[in-house]
Formats: sequence, C-alpha cells, structure tokens
Amino acid sequence: MELRNLSFSSDGKKLRALDQTRLPGEVVYEEYDSCEEIVGAIKLMKVRGAPAIGIAAAMGIAVIAGKLAEECQDSRAFLEELSRQAEIIAQARPTAVNLSWAAKRMMNCAMGDTEGKPKEIAAKLKALAQKIYDEDTEICRKIAENGLTLIKDGDGILTHCNAGPLATSRYGTGLGPIILGLEKGMKFHCFVDETRPLLQGARLTAFELMNAGAEVSLACDSAAAQLMRSGAINAVFVGCDRVAANGDTANKVGTSTAAIAAKYYGVPFYVFCPSPTIDLSCKSGEDIVIEQRDEWEVAGLYFDRQIAPKGVKCVNPAFDITDGKLITAIVTEKGICLPPYEESLKNAAIRRL
Amino acid sequence: MELRNLSFSSDGKKLRALDQTRLPGEVVYEEYDSCEEIVGAIKLMKVRGAPAIGIAAAMGIAVIAGKLAEECQDSRAFLEELSRQAEIIAQARPTAVNLSWAAKRMMNCAMGDTEGKPKEIAAKLKALAQKIYDEDTEICRKIAENGLTLIKDGDGILTHCNAGPLATSRYGTGLGPIILGLEKGMKFHCFVDETRPLLQGARLTAFELMNAGAEVSLACDSAAAQLMRSGAINAVFVGCDRVAANGDTANKVGTSTAAIAAKYYGVPFYVFCPSPTIDLSCKSGEDIVIEQRDEWEVAGLYFDRQIAPKGVKCVNPAFDITDGKLITAIVTEKGICLPPYEESLKNAAIRRL
Repeated sequence: MELRNLSFSSDGKKLRALDQTRLPGEVVYEEYDSCEEIVGAIKLMKVRGAPAIGIAAAMGIAVIAGKLAEECQDSRAFLEELSRQAEIIAQARPTAVNLSWAAKRMMNCAMGDTEGKPKEIAAKLKALAQKIYDEDTEICRKIAENGLTLIKDGDGILTHCNAGPLATSRYGTGLGPIILGLEKGMKFHCFVDETRPLLQGARLTAFELMNAGAEVSLACDSAAAQLMRSGAINAVFVGCDRVAANGDTANKVGTSTAAIAAKYYGVPFYVFCPSPTIDLSCKSGEDIVIEQRDEWEVAGLYFDRQIAPKGVKCVNPAFDITDGKLITAIVTEKGICLPPYEESLKNAAIRRL
Repeated sequence: MELRNLSFSSDGKKLRALDQTRLPGEVVYEEYDSCEEIVGAIKLMKVRGAPAIGIAAAMGIAVIAGKLAEECQDSRAFLEELSRQAEIIAQARPTAVNLSWAAKRMMNCAMGDTEGKPKEIAAKLKALAQKIYDEDTEICRKIAENGLTLIKDGDGILTHCNAGPLATSRYGTGLGPIILGLEKGMKFHCFVDETRPLLQGARLTAFELMNAGAEVSLACDSAAAQLMRSGAINAVFVGCDRVAANGDTANKVGTSTAAIAAKYYGVPFYVFCPSPTIDLSCKSGEDIVIEQRDEWEVAGLYFDRQIAPKGVKCVNPAFDITDGKLITAIVTEKGICLPPYEESLKNAAIRRL
C-alpha cells in the first residue's frame, strides 16, 4: 500500500493531504484551499516532514493563487494579497528551511511576471508547485540510491522520528535506502525510536517500514544507547529539517542524543538531506531557530491523559542541533558529503534564490 | 505532604505499600501478606526503586514468617517453606541487587537460629526488616548531605526516572540533596526526564519535587541533550539499581543516554548509591542482567492506547549500563567515591553476606 501524501484534488482547486495525526489507525484525507487551513494543517502536523511541508506550502500557495485569480483581475492587488498569505504560510513553523524556501520560490515566480494576468500567474504557480513536487521525488530516489551504498544485507539500522515517504513526496529520505534495499530483496532489522512527544516513530515509521516488509523493533527513545551498546545497530539513519554550512543539523528532538551515543559506541551516523534543506546562510547550528511546542504534548501523553501532576511546567523543544562533527556523512541527491562540511556542502547546496 | 511508602500495617501482620502506579492521580495504599501479592506488587512496579524493593522484600519476608509461624510449630518445616517463598521474592526482578541482598540477609538471620521456635524466628525477622528500613533512612540522609556539597544555589539539575523518597524508605537518593537543599532555603531548577515507558519522571519525580517546592520543568527523555547544549543543566543526578566493581552502573533505561550526553557537553554526572547497591561480585556491567519487560509498555503508550501499528514488535530493556568512565562521582553514605572506582568502591561497599 503506497499512500499518496500530498496531491491536488481531482478538480485541481484544492490541496489534498493525508492527515498524518490519525495514522496508523485511520487513513483520512482532507482538502484545503485557504491560508488558515493550510497553516493549521502544518502547525498541527497533519502534514509534517521538512520536504513535505515545503511541498505543501508550494501546492497550497498555488491553490490560493487559483482561488484569488477567480476573485481578482488586478495583478497588483492579486500579488499583494498572495504575498501576504504566502508569508503567513512561510512562517507556520520556524525550523525546517524547506517551508520558507518553497514559499519564496513560489513568490519569486509570481513576482517575475507582474505584467501577467492573475489567472496566467496562477497557472504558472500550479506548474511550479508540481515541479517542486516532482523534483522532490527525483531527489529522494537519488538519495535512496546513494544511501544504499552505505549499508549491507542484514544490517541493523536505527532511525529516529520519520524520514519516510510520508515526510516527502515519495520514497522518503532516511528510510529511502532501506525501502529501496528491501525492494531489491535485501533484509534489514530496523530499530525505530518511538519519538516522543508526537510518536512519529511509533505511528509513522513503524507503519511504513512494516508495510515495506522490514523486520521492525520499536523502542523507547531512551533505549537507543543500550541497543548500540549491545551491538545490534550497524548504522543510524535520520532525516533533517535544516543543515547549516558547517554540517550542524536541526532535526527532531532526540536526534542529537542518538548521534552522541552513536559517536560514543562507534556506530556510523548518517543524515539524509535533500539539497533544499541545506542552508548555507546559517553558518552553524547557533543560527537555527528551534521551535518550542505546546507543553501539553509532553504533560498530556499524546494529548488525552493527565499523567504528570496538574500544573507541571514542561519544556518542549521540537528539534535539536546535532553537531556536524558527530555526523559520519550527509547524504544528498548529488552525492555523499563527508567532513569537512564547510567544503563538501558547498557543492551539494542549491543556489538560494 | 510526605507519603509513607512502606510500613507494617497497624496490626503488624501485613506489609502496607503505596501503589506507585496510581500516582500522582490517586494516593492508594494496599496491604499484602502473601508471597504472590508481594511478588506481584514488585513485578507490576506498584513498589519500585532499588532500595524500596529491597525493603519491601525484607518486610514481606517478615510478614510471611509471621503468618507461617501461626500455622507451623516445626522449625525445620517453617524454615524450608520460608526459604522457598523468600527465593521467589528474591527473583521477582533481576537487575536491582537490593532485592536479592535483602532476601539473603533475612534468610541468613532466619537460618542462624535453627533451634529457635518459628514465632521467635519470625519476631527476629520483623526486627531485622525494621532495621533494614531504618538503615536505609539513615543511608539516604547521609547521601543527601554528601550530595548537597556538589551543587550550589540556583543550579539547574537534570534527573532521570525516580530516585526520590518513593524509591527508598525516606529522603531518596538522587533527589535527596535537592530536597535537603530546598529545606535549607536553596533554590534549584529541576529538569525531569519523563522516563518512558513507565513515566516515573512525569508521575513520581515531578510530583515529589513540586511537593518539595522545586522549580520543575518536565521534558521528554530525548530533550536532555538539547537542554545540556543550551547550558541549562549544571549537573545530572541519578539513582542506581546495581553498581559493579569498576563503577559500571545499571539504572533505568535512558540513564546511559544522559550520561553520554553529559560527558559530551561537559556536564558532571553523579550516581547516588546506597552501599547495599554496590555489588563487587560483578566486575563490570557485562555481569549485570538487564530485565526485559513487556512489549505493551512501549506499544500501548502507558497501557491503554494502541498508538503503534497492530502487531508491531517492541524491544523494552528496563535498564541500561552506564560505563563507569562516564560517571564523575558515585555518592554513597560513606562518602563521595571518585575514579578509579575499582579502588574507591572497595571502601564504600558493604561486606556481602
């Protein structure tokens, strides 16, 4: 079963998105055509994963442009209103660079044609959103091929959070090599961190890897070091939300914990990174904003139970920074980048707009 | 509010224990006088914490001895049956040494008086169980005093799992210095790992520290490294279930993860250890058996919800081993042990029976 994460609705007027908060129990699609709905879906993580929220932003802006073009014939007013809404979408979440990058790319395209009629601009934007989607698919396919050279049949692979097809257009980043290898008849024992607080590992990664035919062992995040100590883990594979020029990587909170333990136990630690996720304007992780999310994600134990004492204060950073020096290699669609990342990432990074 | 974790019932014939699985929502006491009930309470972690399960074993064996002495006048038959039941209690959980140590100490006392009448032996055992309880209280008090020398007013302290009064007779081990410092008017910002899968941090440690007046921030286990990176943590305080001769320490799974991150970020990592928890018969962590617990603790998200895909396999080690070389100091009631632990622990360890 392959789930189509993001697409245009059958009439092309809405963004159709799988509600990832309801997986694996329910497969429910929702359709959005307003800024509020799209921002809400991203904030609530119905759509999540750095590449996927970039694509959702692009497709969402295209859908909004189509709707605005129906209502407004004046190009200047159209572009002003579209810019305003695109900016709100770009700021829905701060850490993944893909979101602001996709919004910027869409608006640069729109602004490049200020003489065009709104409907013409909207048509161009829809084509560009589809191009961003297709590029991501191609990027993920190449990342999977590059990543597969790093592992061998029978390996034990630990992964944190979800870097699977659900986090991208298709194929995934960190899970791509595993799924590709399984398709070629290889076997892997996948150890999946449950990934508190929102349990993307338990809900999404376990689901995707079981569907792909992997041997899956789910574990609490805190068990990763003990699993490495036991010798069960040959490599750690994770995705990323933003990679700085020196290789410092923002990804789901707990990634750096796994990276530090991997370094200690001599297990290679690989980051899987589409080039749009590299942000050379950030010199290091210090320049990356870490999103702080609602305390109830922690205190409420996945939303519905008061487990901790009433009134307890929580800290809930959604991401952390993994030092580049802890990362064995950063796998992009253009090749495998090795340290020093200041050099190797320059060639892999896309030219920023 | 101080909760009396373990005591004899008012008629002295039962073990009265606070059911820790229902905290902090409900304060419920249960009373046990059979081997099955006591073993069940320990296995289900109604009573938990290495010192506390040792004490529960001692008090439980005393209660069983009292009941057996009512039914049986023959000393040999009495001792045989008591030994059989004590052995079952000793094996209720494998990792914490306190359990088997307390059971052995009780049975050595019983066997030292094979000429005595069952009722006389039972009376001696009850006195010894109370002595073990009182010794633990005294040990914890001294550990708190020793540990308080390691921190200063205003420090940020991270703790994992629960090493508070609930894990012992009174005062606690890892939380002892914090609670003592608060009593003296000091202030600390306590960062509490929620401690998946059974959430002892969220349920018990947050509860105890809030009651003691600490500033508490609860966080997912995976956020500890990011908190250390941010500079918020001045020291990590944890308890222990068994300490080997070289300082390798078994404690709640996730302890080693925190220790490795602490080493990486230069944060001192302290283990708080009553001398009965040192086991010189284990040369290193390799000799310590790690309990594997039920998969549903992970897959069911604290027991009642199918979050992960149905049929997913889980690995659930209840403990992990922290290498002695990651530990800044091991704080016992006899003093603060520094590396090399092969030397310093010899003086701190109790003479084994």
